[in-house]
Amino acid sequence: MSRIFNFSAGPAVLPEEVLKEAADEMMDYRGSGMSVMEMSHRSKVYDTIIKAAEADLRELMNIPDNYKVLFLQGGASTQFAMIPMNLMKNRVADYIVTGQWAKKAYQEASIYGKANKIASSEDETYSYIPDCSDLPISENADYVYICENNTIYGTKFKTLPNTKGKTLVADVSSCFLSEPVDVKQYGLLYGGAQKNIGPAGVVIAVIREDLITDTVLPETPSMLKYKIHADNESMYNTPPAYGIYICGKVFKWLQKFGGLEAIKAHNEIKAGILYDYLDESSLFKGTVRPSDRSLMNVPFITGSDEMDAKFVKEATKAGFLNLKGHRSVGGMRASIYNAMPIEGVEKLVAFMKDFELENK
Amino acid sequence: MSRIFNFSAGPAVLPEEVLKEAADEMMDYRGSGMSVMEMSHRSKVYDTIIKAAEADLRELMNIPDNYKVLFLQGGASTQFAMIPMNLMKNRVADYIVTGQWAKKAYQEASIYGKANKIASSEDETYSYIPDCSDLPISENADYVYICENNTIYGTKFKTLPNTKGKTLVADVSSCFLSEPVDVKQYGLLYGGAQKNIGPAGVVIAVIREDLITDTVLPETPSMLKYKIHADNESMYNTPPAYGIYICGKVFKWLQKFGGLEAIKAHNEIKAGILYDYLDESSLFKGTVRPSDRSLMNVPFITGSDEMDAKFVKEATKAGFLNLKGHRSVGGMRASIYNAMPIEGVEKLVAFMKDFELENK
Repeated sequence: MSRIFNFSAGPAVLPEEVLKEAADEMMDYRGSGMSVMEMSHRSKVYDTIIKAAEADLRELMNIPDNYKVLFLQGGASTQFAMIPMNLMKNRVADYIVTGQWAKKAYQEASIYGKANKIASSEDETYSYIPDCSDLPISENADYVYICENNTIYGTKFKTLPNTKGKTLVADVSSCFLSEPVDVKQYGLLYGGAQKNIGPAGVVIAVIREDLITDTVLPETPSMLKYKIHADNESMYNTPPAYGIYICGKVFKWLQKFGGLEAIKAHNEIKAGILYDYLDESSLFKGTVRPSDRSLMNVPFITGSDEMDAKFVKEATKAGFLNLKGHRSVGGMRASIYNAMPIEGVEKLVAFMKDFELENK
Repeated sequence: MSRIFNFSAGPAVLPEEVLKEAADEMMDYRGSGMSVMEMSHRSKVYDTIIKAAEADLRELMNIPDNYKVLFLQGGASTQFAMIPMNLMKNRVADYIVTGQWAKKAYQEASIYGKANKIASSEDETYSYIPDCSDLPISENADYVYICENNTIYGTKFKTLPNTKGKTLVADVSSCFLSEPVDVKQYGLLYGGAQKNIGPAGVVIAVIREDLITDTVLPETPSMLKYKIHADNESMYNTPPAYGIYICGKVFKWLQKFGGLEAIKAHNEIKAGILYDYLDESSLFKGTVRPSDRSLMNVPFITGSDEMDAKFVKEATKAGFLNLKGHRSVGGMRASIYNAMPIEGVEKLVAFMKDFELENK
C-alpha cells in the first residue's frame, strides 16, 4: 500500500483507520456473515449501525433534542430545491451569495418564490465574505440562506449573519464537523458527506422540529419532504446504507480524536502552516481576504498561469494530488479537511518552498 | 471469514469476488494512492471507472445507441415523481398496479396529473399479473407504467403489456440484469441497484433520447430533470461514486459469468429447485400463480403463522438469513438474486425438507 497526499475538494481524503476497518469488515461485518452493503436496512444489525451514527453525531455536535438528524440522498443540489419547497411558506427567502453553490441555491429557490439576493461578493470573485451585521432582511422572509464555507473560493463565515430573527439555513458541506458549532443558531444546517464525513451519496440535515411540517409547496415530491424522512427516521425508502456506515466510522474516529474542539485545533495548525507560508512567499499568494480564510480550502496562485500549471504538474509527480484549482477560478487549491494529517501540509509547504527556490 | 446465506430482498447478497476486490482496493485503488471513496469524481481515474461501468452495462444489456444510461440518486421512490414530472406532457399516464411499489408510483403520479389505474391484482393480494394483452390504454396517455418484478409478492411480467403504441416505463429494480431484456421495448427502464447490482444509493435509468426534453412540469427541481443528468453525463453534481464503482465490478462479474443468457440459466436452475420443492411439499406452499412466478423473489407459507415463525427462527439459527416475508404480507420469502449461489438454494431446500419431516 502506498498512500499519497490527497488535497481533493471532494470526494476527499478519509481517515486511514476508517478505510482499514471498512476493508477488514467487507466480507463479514462483525460476525453477521455479510457485508454492510448486503444488509437489509430494516435488519437489527443495520439498525444498530444507523442509530449509533446518529447518536455519535448528536454527541459530537451537541445537537439539541428539538432537532432531527436526517440521512438523505441527492447531494446539496437536491437540497437547493427541497429547502424552498419545504420552508417557503410565504414564498420569500433571502440569500447571501458568496460563491457558485450559494448562487445555484439562490437560482433554484427562484423557481419556487421570491428569492432575494441580499448580499453578494461576486464583485471580487467571491474572495471575501460580505458584512452581514445589518442586511436588508425581508420582512416576510421564510429564511436567510448561506453557504457557510465556500469550497471553490476558500472563504468562511467567521460570524453568522444577523438574520434579525429569521430562520438561518446553512449549507455546511465543506466545514461540517471541522470545528464546534452552535446548532441552536440554525433552523437547518446540512451538508454532503463527501468532504469531511464519508463517501458521496449521503447528505446529512440537522433541522429544528418546528420547521418540519406538512405545509409544503404543492407538487413537492414525497421524497423531497423533510416530514416524510423525519417520520420514518430516514427509512422512508432504502437509505444509502453503506455510506451512512462509513460516516458512522468517521464520527467514532472524531470522538477518539477528542471531538470538535480537538479537530479545530488540529485544523488551525494545518491551515496556519499553509497560510503563514503563503503570507511570506514571494512566489505564491493566497487569494482570500485574510479575515475570511477557510480552515478547509486554501486557494493560491503564482500570478502566472504557466507557473501554476508547472507547479501542479510537479506537485502531482511528487505525490501531492488534486491541487489544481476549480475550473471556474484556476490557480491552485489545497483542501485540507479533517482527515488530512499535519504531515501532509508540512510536506506540501516544504515542496512549495523548494519549488519557489528553483523558480526564482 | 464466515459468510452466511443471505436471502434478503434488498440490500442483498453481492458476489464474493466483488466484495473481495473492493476490500483489496480500499486503501489504494490500483496504484492511485487512494480509495475510490476519496477520489474526485472529476479525476481521470474516476472517469475511467464510471465510463467502464456504463460501457459494460451497455454491452450486457445490448443497449441501443439512442438510449442514455444515467446514474442517479434517491431510489425508485424519487423516480416515482421524476417520471411524471418529466414525461407527463399531457398530464395523463396509465398505471398497472401489481404491488405496493407500483401503487406508490401510481399515487405519486396522481400529484402531477391524471394517473389511471388500468389494471390491478390487488383483489388477490397481488399474487398474479393481470392479463395485459388488451387494456383500456388512455388515448392521450404519456406512458404506461409497470413494476416488472414485484419484490414483495414474487410475481413477474413474463410478457410485457400491450401498450398500443404508448411508451412503456418500467421499474425493473428486482429483476435488473437477471435475464436478457429487449431494451427497445421500453421508453424508460430503471431500478435501484441494491438488489442485483450494488449498494443502496444508486439508481440506474436507461432512457430513450427522445424522452429527454426541456419540456418538464413547472417547478420540477433541477436534480429531477433527466435532461440535466443526461447533458452532464451523470456528473451534474457529485454522483454516488463509490456505489457506481461497485456496480461496475458487478457488471464485470456478470460478463465473466457469461452475460445475461448465462445468468438467466443459473437463475432458472435456482428458482426451479425451490419451486419444484414447494410444489411437492405438504408443509410449504408458494403463494403466486405459477405462470407469474418471479425468478428472483420466492414467497411461501405454511398456512400457520406460528409454524412460519418457527421456521424463520430455526432457519436463521442454521445460517439462512432474512427469510421472513415482507411485513405487509407475512409468511416467508427467499430472494435469490444473481449473486446467490446454487448451493445456497440447495442447502435451503435440504433444510426445508428436514424441517418438514420434523414438523409433520
